[in-house]
Amino acid sequence: VKKKKEAKGSLIIIGGREDKEEKMVILSEVARQVGKGKLCVATLASSIASDLWVIYRNVFRKLGVTHISHLDVVQRDDARDPACLRAVRGADAVFFTGGDQLRITSELGGSLVADEIAKIYEQGGLIAGTSAGASVMSESMLVGGPSDASYRGNSGVKMAPGLGFMKNVIIDQHFAERGRIGRLLGAISQNPKYLGIGIDEDTAIIVKGDEKLSVIGCGTVYVIDARGATESNISECDEDRALSIFNVKIHLLSQGDSFDIASRAPGHAKRQGAA
Amino acid sequence: VKKKKEAKGSLIIIGGREDKEEKMVILSEVARQVGKGKLCVATLASSIASDLWVIYRNVFRKLGVTHISHLDVVQRDDARDPACLRAVRGADAVFFTGGDQLRITSELGGSLVADEIAKIYEQGGLIAGTSAGASVMSESMLVGGPSDASYRGNSGVKMAPGLGFMKNVIIDQHFAERGRIGRLLGAISQNPKYLGIGIDEDTAIIVKGDEKLSVIGCGTVYVIDARGATESNISECDEDRALSIFNVKIHLLSQGDSFDIASRAPGHAKRQGAA
Repeated sequence: VKKKKEAKGSLIIIGGREDKEEKMVILSEVARQVGKGKLCVATLASSIASDLWVIYRNVFRKLGVTHISHLDVVQRDDARDPACLRAVRGADAVFFTGGDQLRITSELGGSLVADEIAKIYEQGGLIAGTSAGASVMSESMLVGGPSDASYRGNSGVKMAPGLGFMKNVIIDQHFAERGRIGRLLGAISQNPKYLGIGIDEDTAIIVKGDEKLSVIGCGTVYVIDARGATESNISECDEDRALSIFNVKIHLLSQGDSFDIASRAPGHAKRQGAA
Repeated sequence: VKKKKEAKGSLIIIGGREDKEEKMVILSEVARQVGKGKLCVATLASSIASDLWVIYRNVFRKLGVTHISHLDVVQRDDARDPACLRAVRGADAVFFTGGDQLRITSELGGSLVADEIAKIYEQGGLIAGTSAGASVMSESMLVGGPSDASYRGNSGVKMAPGLGFMKNVIIDQHFAERGRIGRLLGAISQNPKYLGIGIDEDTAIIVKGDEKLSVIGCGTVYVIDARGATESNISECDEDRALSIFNVKIHLLSQGDSFDIASRAPGHAKRQGAA
């Protein structure tokens, strides 16, 4: 019998612009989890992939990671390339950089490389991602939508299928910094089964076995729960009709806070052991 | 016995940038409520007061208001000027333009002109305001704070005493457009007795007798209710510590929606009469 829960690895999902020079709280946690293992840095979301590779390779080296490979798929054909497979095979962790989330899923989706990455996670490894690399973590991902705007039928909120490591959530990044609460509220109003998770810059959630998340970094994580919403006009939001939705719950979490995904309950990581 | 509730007038609180050229849904409602009465346009928030006076005079004339006066206090001394008192005396409605909300309260607060305006409201008149003119409606008003940022101890959220027409709320304007949910969440976390009301541009709430609001215009009104919040670290938010607050309720209201302030319950204005 497959012990599904124990087999699963962990996720570190970062809201973008994580500190790479000073305290490096988030990248240190990635490095700590990688330990003596092999880390694959996947830059395929980016149009400046080789620059990002150099930046992250240097940072992770500084943080003590000794075994680092580079995955830079440019076209779907590359995902069959032996060099690409070598980059991920044997890795204990994969780190997805920022860029365009659709590049990640359109280049990797359904490929052997993607299967390898899924295997790393299923066997207890770490999948981390920042910015676009954060959005791809969910099954349904946000790929577009306005900044600083309430949701409307024509406001351009777009979704696509993600890599699916984290179930039942929709993740957004650069959250407060780019004024994205409007688009995330729109996305979860479409199906309140999905919990909205908006992550600020230099802030991350650590997810273990898809069940509990905890927050590190200097910003806020907004967990938006519309399951109890009593009314919404989302299906009538044509053209420039603005969204109505009543009784949505929102939790602001910061460093040291946690959230139980199954029970949808916030808590303090620090007080976990308290009576 | 003073029938307090019936004696009170109505408020139209606008999130800024209301349409002045096309459908003019909001300003038409102001004009409709003024009817054959006298409207005083108060431009004292603005540094371009005479320009605003010309713009609003022309718009309200176009909308059928025939009796329009101009209140332009520049210094506290002016608030004793007979011309200022004449502008407000006998008015059935006052419209506060945008600008800086602190100019309104610092120039008017405690003056005879302010007493006259309060009397207009108490006797059933209309007080309307847009942008800065919206913020001053509450007892405690937001006067500063960042755009596109989560609340932190040092993020510069500033409050001051407002004109106090609407009790138990804190109003913010240009809400989605300037990414202000972070600062409003911070403000209401300080005292969850206060309901946060964030109003988008070209969107307004109509408040009757301080008890019920309804929404007009093309954007969204965010009603944020932290009374049921289970935990918050606001009092420990020093320096750059980010805010945590759990179990906050949020309602997105749009045209046709209403909100009962006493029971804190959203509804549809249209369905009010339904069984």
